[in-house]
Amino acid sequence: MRDVLTEWRPVVDGAIEELLPRAVDEAYLTEWFGPASHRYDPEAIQRALSDPVWDLLDRGGKRWRAVVCLLLIDGFGADPHEYLTYACIPEILHNGTIIVDDVEDEARIRRGEPALHHQYGEDIALNAGNAMYFLPLKVVGKNPADLDSGTQLAMYEMLMDELNRTHLGQGMDIYWHRNREAEVAEAEYLEMCACKTGCLGRIVARLAAILTDQSPEIEREIAKYAEDMSIAFQIGDDILDIESTIEGTTEFGKAFGNDIREGKRTLMVIHALSEADAESAERLSSILHKPENTREEILDAIGILQSTDSVEYARECALSFAESARDHLRKVPLEEERATQLASFTEFVIDRDV
Amino acid sequence: MRDVLTEWRPVVDGAIEELLPRAVDEAYLTEWFGPASHRYDPEAIQRALSDPVWDLLDRGGKRWRAVVCLLLIDGFGADPHEYLTYACIPEILHNGTIIVDDVEDEARIRRGEPALHHQYGEDIALNAGNAMYFLPLKVVGKNPADLDSGTQLAMYEMLMDELNRTHLGQGMDIYWHRNREAEVAEAEYLEMCACKTGCLGRIVARLAAILTDQSPEIEREIAKYAEDMSIAFQIGDDILDIESTIEGTTEFGKAFGNDIREGKRTLMVIHALSEADAESAERLSSILHKPENTREEILDAIGILQSTDSVEYARECALSFAESARDHLRKVPLEEERATQLASFTEFVIDRDV
Repeated sequence: MRDVLTEWRPVVDGAIEELLPRAVDEAYLTEWFGPASHRYDPEAIQRALSDPVWDLLDRGGKRWRAVVCLLLIDGFGADPHEYLTYACIPEILHNGTIIVDDVEDEARIRRGEPALHHQYGEDIALNAGNAMYFLPLKVVGKNPADLDSGTQLAMYEMLMDELNRTHLGQGMDIYWHRNREAEVAEAEYLEMCACKTGCLGRIVARLAAILTDQSPEIEREIAKYAEDMSIAFQIGDDILDIESTIEGTTEFGKAFGNDIREGKRTLMVIHALSEADAESAERLSSILHKPENTREEILDAIGILQSTDSVEYARECALSFAESARDHLRKVPLEEERATQLASFTEFVIDRDV
Repeated sequence: MRDVLTEWRPVVDGAIEELLPRAVDEAYLTEWFGPASHRYDPEAIQRALSDPVWDLLDRGGKRWRAVVCLLLIDGFGADPHEYLTYACIPEILHNGTIIVDDVEDEARIRRGEPALHHQYGEDIALNAGNAMYFLPLKVVGKNPADLDSGTQLAMYEMLMDELNRTHLGQGMDIYWHRNREAEVAEAEYLEMCACKTGCLGRIVARLAAILTDQSPEIEREIAKYAEDMSIAFQIGDDILDIESTIEGTTEFGKAFGNDIREGKRTLMVIHALSEADAESAERLSSILHKPENTREEILDAIGILQSTDSVEYARECALSFAESARDHLRKVPLEEERATQLASFTEFVIDRDV
C-alpha cells in the first residue's frame, strides 16, 4: 500500500500545481478565472491563496484520496493519467476542510507545525480554505477529459450532494460539542461520520464511477465502500486516541487524553453512557463536561470506557464497517489486482501503519 | 424603488423558507439531502444551521439581490413567480458571505446585533456560513423550473466562475489589509471590487439571463450592468464612511472614522497617496498603519483626502461606474417599466435612501 502511495504522490502534486501553481501570475489567473475586468494583483493572490495552501500540502499528507480515485479509475479499465486533474478534486477539497475545521476546532497544531490560522492569520486561512472549496470544482467546467455535458452535469450534482452533507455532518458534530447536554444516539453518531468524513470519501469513489461511465448501481456500491471505510477509519481514530493515552505513547501526535479533554462524543462514549451504571455514567459525563481535566480524571474516564467494554465494542464496530466496505467492493466489477489493493485499504482501520 | 422591495420581501422570504425551513425535521432533510445512511439529528441541524441563518435574515436586509433578479426575469418577459427559488440563490449566498466575512474581519456588530460568531460561537457561525455557499446550489439540481440539462450546466458553470472570483477578490482585500506596505494601484482596487462585491451582482444578473435563455451577448451586458453598479456602490460606501465622519452623523451605523481606523485601502486613499506631496502621503500612510487612531489623526487623514480632492474624485468615479452600468443596461432588450426601475437603482449609489 505504502508503495503505491509513494509512487503516485509526486504525480498528484504535479497535477495540483497545474490547478494552483506555487507562483501565481497574470497568465494563470486569466486562463483559470477569465480576463480581469480591471487588473489582478497576482502577488496578493499568491500570498493569500497559493502560499498557505502549498505550505499545508508540503507538510505531508499521503494524497490517498487522489490515489484511491486513480486506482478505481484504473480498476474500471480506464487510463488514470487521463483523469489526473479530476483526482485532485477531493484532495484539494480535503485540504480546504482541514484549514476551516482547524479554525472551527481552535486547533493549534497541524502536521507538526502551527495551524494555518496561527501561521497566516484567521482571515487569510479561512479565505484560502473556502477558496479551495470552489477552485477544484472549476475542473468540471474546464473539462480537460472532454466529457459530454450529461457527465459534467452528473459530476456537479454529485459534488453538490456530498458537499451539502459534509456541512450537515460538521453542524451535528459542532452542535453536540457546544451542547454537551444534547443526547446523541449511536445511529446519529454514525450519520455524523457518514456525512462529515464519509462524503469526501464518497466524492473520491463517485468521481471514478462517473468518469468511467459506470451504472447508477455500481456508483452506489462503490460510494458505500468509501463511506463505510471512512466511518471505520473515524472510529479507528477515536480508538487510537484512547489507546495511545492508555499506553502513554505520544507517536499519535496528540495531547494526553485529547478526545476526553475535548469532551468528544465518540462511539465509545455513547456506548459507555448507555451501558454503565448510573453513577459511572454521571461521572463520565461530568468529566467530559469540564473545561479542563486532570490526569486522574482522564484515567478515570478511560476506566469507565474499559469497564463497559466500550473500546472493544467500538473496535468490533469499526471492523464490521470495514467488512461491510469490502462487501460493497466485491459487488463492483474491478480489475483483480486493483480490487485487492482497494480491499487492503480497509485492513488498516485500526493499525495505521499504511 | 422602496415599494417594489417592500412588496417582494415577504415573497422572497417565503421561498427561502422552502430552501431552509425555520423548523428542520427529518422529512425536510430526507427530501433535500437524500435519505440518511443511519439517522439525522434534525434538532442539531436546526440549531447549527437554520437558527443562526434565520436570526441573520430576520435582522433585516432588503433582499435586493433576489428582487433585482426577479425584476430582470420579468423584464425579459418571463413570469418571476416561476423562478422564485432561483432568485433566492444569490440572496442566501450573500448572507453566507456576511457570516464568514464578519469572522474574517473580526466584526463585532451586524445589523445592530452581535455578529453571528459572537452570538453562536465561531464554529457554528462559520459552518452555517459555509453551508449557505452550497445549500442554494442544490436548487440547480432540484430543477424546480424543469430546465433542460444544457441550461442547468450553464448555471453551474456560471456559479463556479463567479464564486471562484469572489474568493480572489476577498484574498486581495485581506492581503492588502494585512500588509499595509503592499502598493495598490487603482485598477487593482477596482478589480477587487469587481470580484469581491461584483461577482454576487453578476450572479443575480446572469441567473436571470440564463433562466430566460438570453444570448451570450445579452448575458455579458447585463452582468456588466450588475458589476459596474456593484463597484459604484462599493465606492459610494467608502465615501459615506468618510462623509458621516466629517458630518459627525452616526446614522450610517459605523464607528467614527471606521475605514481609516481599519487602514482600509479605499479609492480615496489610493488617489490621495499618489496626489499628495511626499510629507502628506507619508503622514496619511502612517495614520493608516497605526493599530489605533486618535480623533485628531482621523481628522488629519480626512484633511489630506480633502486637500487632494480625493473624495470628489471618488464621487466622480462612482457616478461614472453608475453611468456605465446604465449604458450596459440600455443594450439589453427589457420591458420598459422594468428597465426604468433597474436604471433607477444606479441613482442611489451615493444617496442611500432607497
